[in-house]
Amino acid sequence: MSSTAGLVIPCRAAVAWEAGKPLVIEQVEVAPPQTMEVRINVKYTSLCRTDIYFWESKGQTPLFPRIFGHEAAGIVESVGIGVTELKPGDHVLPVFTGECKECRHCKSEESNMCDLLRINTDRGVMLNDGKSRFSIKGQPINHFLGTSTFSEYTVLHVGCLAKINPSAPLDKVCVVSCGISTGLGATLNVAKPKRGSVVAVFGLGAVGLAACEGARIAGALRIIGVDRNPHRFEYAKKFGVTDFVNPKDHQKPMQEVLVEMTDGGVDRAIECTGNIDAMISAFECVHDGWGVAVLVGVPHKDAVFMTKPINILNERTLKGTFFGNYKPRTDIPKVVEMYMKKELELDKFLTHRVKFSEINKAFELMLKGEGLRCIISMDD
Amino acid sequence: MSSTAGLVIPCRAAVAWEAGKPLVIEQVEVAPPQTMEVRINVKYTSLCRTDIYFWESKGQTPLFPRIFGHEAAGIVESVGIGVTELKPGDHVLPVFTGECKECRHCKSEESNMCDLLRINTDRGVMLNDGKSRFSIKGQPINHFLGTSTFSEYTVLHVGCLAKINPSAPLDKVCVVSCGISTGLGATLNVAKPKRGSVVAVFGLGAVGLAACEGARIAGALRIIGVDRNPHRFEYAKKFGVTDFVNPKDHQKPMQEVLVEMTDGGVDRAIECTGNIDAMISAFECVHDGWGVAVLVGVPHKDAVFMTKPINILNERTLKGTFFGNYKPRTDIPKVVEMYMKKELELDKFLTHRVKFSEINKAFELMLKGEGLRCIISMDD
Ligand SMILES: NC(=O)c1ccc[n+]([C@@H]2O[C@H](COP(=O)([O-])OP(=O)(O)OC[C@H]3O[C@@H](n4cnc5c(N)ncnc54)[C@H](O)[C@@H]3O)[C@@H](O)[C@H]2O)c1
Ligand SMILES: NC(=O)c1ccc[n+]([C@@H]2O[C@H](COP(=O)([O-])OP(=O)(O)OC[C@H]3O[C@@H](n4cnc5c(N)ncnc54)[C@H](O)[C@@H]3O)[C@@H](O)[C@H]2O)c1
Ligand SMILES: [Zn+2]
Ligand SMILES: [Zn+2]
Ligand SMILES: [Zn+2]
Ligand SMILES: [Zn+2]
Repeated sequence: MSSTAGLVIPCRAAVAWEAGKPLVIEQVEVAPPQTMEVRINVKYTSLCRTDIYFWESKGQTPLFPRIFGHEAAGIVESVGIGVTELKPGDHVLPVFTGECKECRHCKSEESNMCDLLRINTDRGVMLNDGKSRFSIKGQPINHFLGTSTFSEYTVLHVGCLAKINPSAPLDKVCVVSCGISTGLGATLNVAKPKRGSVVAVFGLGAVGLAACEGARIAGALRIIGVDRNPHRFEYAKKFGVTDFVNPKDHQKPMQEVLVEMTDGGVDRAIECTGNIDAMISAFECVHDGWGVAVLVGVPHKDAVFMTKPINILNERTLKGTFFGNYKPRTDIPKVVEMYMKKELELDKFLTHRVKFSEINKAFELMLKGEGLRCIISMDD
Repeated sequence: MSSTAGLVIPCRAAVAWEAGKPLVIEQVEVAPPQTMEVRINVKYTSLCRTDIYFWESKGQTPLFPRIFGHEAAGIVESVGIGVTELKPGDHVLPVFTGECKECRHCKSEESNMCDLLRINTDRGVMLNDGKSRFSIKGQPINHFLGTSTFSEYTVLHVGCLAKINPSAPLDKVCVVSCGISTGLGATLNVAKPKRGSVVAVFGLGAVGLAACEGARIAGALRIIGVDRNPHRFEYAKKFGVTDFVNPKDHQKPMQEVLVEMTDGGVDRAIECTGNIDAMISAFECVHDGWGVAVLVGVPHKDAVFMTKPINILNERTLKGTFFGNYKPRTDIPKVVEMYMKKELELDKFLTHRVKFSEINKAFELMLKGEGLRCIISMDD
């Protein structure tokens, strides 16, 4: 038992009081975990584009004040009633979509969309009592994705925590908790390119480059990276990307450019932008007869996917995935092992590092499109 | 060598002179087959919805005068230069999409969209010389789908003919040449329901009921038939359909009705209507996490498939197929064998029979939505 178990923990958290305004480091009170909940000490967190979307609240439902953050690594501080799989001291990765292990999805080989714990972007409270575990002088602060890792301590449902190898360095594997697994799994679990395939990846942020990393691991012959930000191409060179296409350099829609470049279309396309035009291009650039497109990006809430039915009838396949179809508790410890065995490279994703007190710098970097992942160190 | 080999054959054909006007039985001249072509004596043909679409030319490019027909069975009369796989007397099924056996598609395990011989609805001539083999007093008459089976004799590329077991009854297996294989393959080759699945089929014409037949063969637990025509439900009872839904009986969109009926959605949906709303409903009614929707119907040329990207991201799969992903020369003889071994039932599809001289009756029946397949006997 840790000495804080059962007590409210006062600690620092970066609170978003208003859409698009810099986060403010506040003293918050974190209530103890309830039934099936776990309180963790966040050691490292990083920033993912999904945090930015909901913080900006341009195309998404606003909910403030809120503690964002969902890509992180930490150590269990205490556990609530009914939690048997985790104990204080365990090293864990929080995951924005959970695994109850009991519903039809958790029991299905194909799905990771747990009925109980699947991603819910509009909920700001815990499932157990419909309340927040965070407060400032009695005022509740909303959770985000059931993770809220921009806080030294946070409370999660046990189903949203992957117990990992304690020798894995937390300042590296924290990115496995969202972006890297999402992109890697989109390729390895969903697109499943054959050895020697031509793979296009739309969006070369951390998620897209993790999709490229998946293509490299799967033995793709050619990896075509598409991004509007030319700075991304520098990073992408470390990821085995063989061809770079910037939509801004072309008059024609991307699908036409890619179909021409590849004599009929790519074998697999993975969309990691969140942009609806890129989603449509990704689908329409895959080869008829056998091409598979996988959507990953989180779209604007009013976006509509449109295509002529003949593009579908011509034997193309369209799929979508959350979190690369990985089941968080079952599969994520294995992704960490891939890193430990040097099959998966993580260092090339980690381009910046800031102290928790400087968290707004991480936001600025992502808004400017600089770097891939910025590690935020909670202890500094 | 048949006595007519190398000669022009005068014979009867049903010519469509104008969009939507009754066909006229004319004396046509059928030129001999050229390089890689085969001339066949059509014994039986049936009418498929695709003939109606292009004959009506409402949502499709008009091309007249034209000889329609693509679902048929016949006997080889003579072969052109280079044809080694077929000889006079062989029993064959013509297929609207061919198999050259040499292109990337023919060599791929997944595709049947042959680069050379794939369906082309706008071409009215043969590939070899860009000309028609049909004429009336010197006036060329357009081909349709490279098959034009509403003629006692017709010329096809050898890659569009499946050589079948000569003991198979041609007046039954003729329907394997399009509709039945299309629906059956959409289920067995593309949707691939697991034993015990819940399968929805939109459109209970011959194609849709063949999809139901596929679901029955695959061991589906529940087969939900959706059609706007209540007469279809009578036929559907012979096909193991367990639930019937008529969109006209509901205020809500079909996807909502089906999701409610099935506690979250069906495992597989197969769309066999050609109607864009049904295509969208078929996609949106499949269960998130694992559901697969397959589009089969030929859409209006201006139709656009639209859905919110979240429906895709929620781990649904959308696919399309031509001809049930069967490769005509390689696979269709095996479908005929399924019938010979009584695994596949064909008799329940054959609801009407007319003489060739009464071919317009077959059109009237399909326009009224009566029956499934009407066999047109060429020798009568
Ligand atoms: N489905 C999931 O489970 C899941 C998980 C994590 C992130 N995401 C989403 O994945 C996407 C990528 O995340 P990230 O953290 O890598 O973001 P990021 O902002 O670092 O990278 C996105 C990249 O896409 C590029 N881009 C934007 N629009 C484009 C267009 N039309 N064409 C080409 N390139 C375009 C940008 O220039 C940028 O480089 C986001 O939408 C994020 O919300 C989804
Ligand atoms: N992809 C291919 O390879 C291929 C091959 C053959 C046929 N087809 C197409 O498959 C479709 C079916 O062919 P068929 O010969 O069975 O036609 P059909 O006309 O006999 O059957 C279609 C059925 O769909 C029903 N329907 C129409 N709109 C509907 C809606 N919105 N909701 C529910 N039911 C609706 C009709 O009432 C009818 O019973 C056609 O579009 C045809 O062109 C495609
Ligand atoms: Zn994320
Ligand atoms: Zn679950
Ligand atoms: Zn047909
Ligand atoms: Zn071919």
